[in-house]
Amino acid sequence: MTETLVLHEYSASGNCYKVRLTAAHVGVNLERREYDIMKGETRTPEFLANVNANGRIPVLQVGDRFIPESNAACHFLADGSPLLPADRFDHADMLRWMFFEQYNHEPNIATLRFWLGWVGVDRLTDAQRLQIPLKRQAGKAALELMDSHLGGRDWFVGAAISLADICLFAYTHVADEANFDLELYPNVIAWMERIITHPSHIQLDA
Amino acid sequence: MTETLVLHEYSASGNCYKVRLTAAHVGVNLERREYDIMKGETRTPEFLANVNANGRIPVLQVGDRFIPESNAACHFLADGSPLLPADRFDHADMLRWMFFEQYNHEPNIATLRFWLGWVGVDRLTDAQRLQIPLKRQAGKAALELMDSHLGGRDWFVGAAISLADICLFAYTHVADEANFDLELYPNVIAWMERIITHPSHIQLDA
Repeated sequence: MTETLVLHEYSASGNCYKVRLTAAHVGVNLERREYDIMKGETRTPEFLANVNANGRIPVLQVGDRFIPESNAACHFLADGSPLLPADRFDHADMLRWMFFEQYNHEPNIATLRFWLGWVGVDRLTDAQRLQIPLKRQAGKAALELMDSHLGGRDWFVGAAISLADICLFAYTHVADEANFDLELYPNVIAWMERIITHPSHIQLDA
Repeated sequence: MTETLVLHEYSASGNCYKVRLTAAHVGVNLERREYDIMKGETRTPEFLANVNANGRIPVLQVGDRFIPESNAACHFLADGSPLLPADRFDHADMLRWMFFEQYNHEPNIATLRFWLGWVGVDRLTDAQRLQIPLKRQAGKAALELMDSHLGGRDWFVGAAISLADICLFAYTHVADEANFDLELYPNVIAWMERIITHPSHIQLDA
């Protein structure tokens, strides 16, 4: 990688952690620029004009170009590395789990973590409060599906760690902060142990 | 492609249409198997055990293997075709728009289309009804972001049609069925016209 890589992030976000964890696995250095989402620092006119018109982090800056969407940023970093399966079906299958993560996992588990741990239940709107049981149920369904899939396999796709594992790990390993009981999912626990003991692993707060 | 390709689908779904539209662009034939989601045909024990444990369509069957998640199925079909940009940054940028589609566009525009046109507003739960204005606002924001991005460009990524265009087109072109006024987004209208007049184009009801 010859161009400077800058991660525009809020470091406690699991979506931002994914990008750092991918970078650690492929051995590239990221400059880090922190924005306080609780103070609206990703919704300023400057951020919207220069970094991401969608007002969200993470954004990976590659030279003077920008990639929003955590899983797309991970794909850029992992391109050409063993984190992307070479086989055509396996590559699509990896993306399947990454889309599952953004559709079925993150909007439930990450959102509950944010609502309960950052915003505070007293400050939620009625519409948000009514969604809590739905997100709880959908989050459990996502964890059950993961646990079932991991029965008899070490990794989500094929025989090695891929971006599917890294992207799903990010919010799964902090699901307890959203009051999910991970002990109910023993295959998920064993899989997280494999990720945590990988020699390239870094922690969320690293 | 030597293996038989079967699309497990509900044909009125934009997510299923994406896969058929991608197949039309790359010139491969799909066998089609229809499930009535209004009758719970994707939640039967047989479907969950044999097609998709997540109980959703579309699922692309490749021989005896299965790819859930519409955008992952599109990626499988488009692999090796001009619909996937060869450039590393552009490939990631295409995925960025595909993740945007599943996170910011589909849960708002497609869900409102389904709630208003299939379920019926009288049958929605209170939690769903309270979400309508939020999804309306988020859907408009997604269309505005698309319109702004398309200012001065023909396609979402680079200089040619890619999966980003196909995946975003699927629910955008029926957003009027969810009472979004597409006339407010002239760049989106012009972009849809380019897609519709592409020689490989097929319609949702084809």
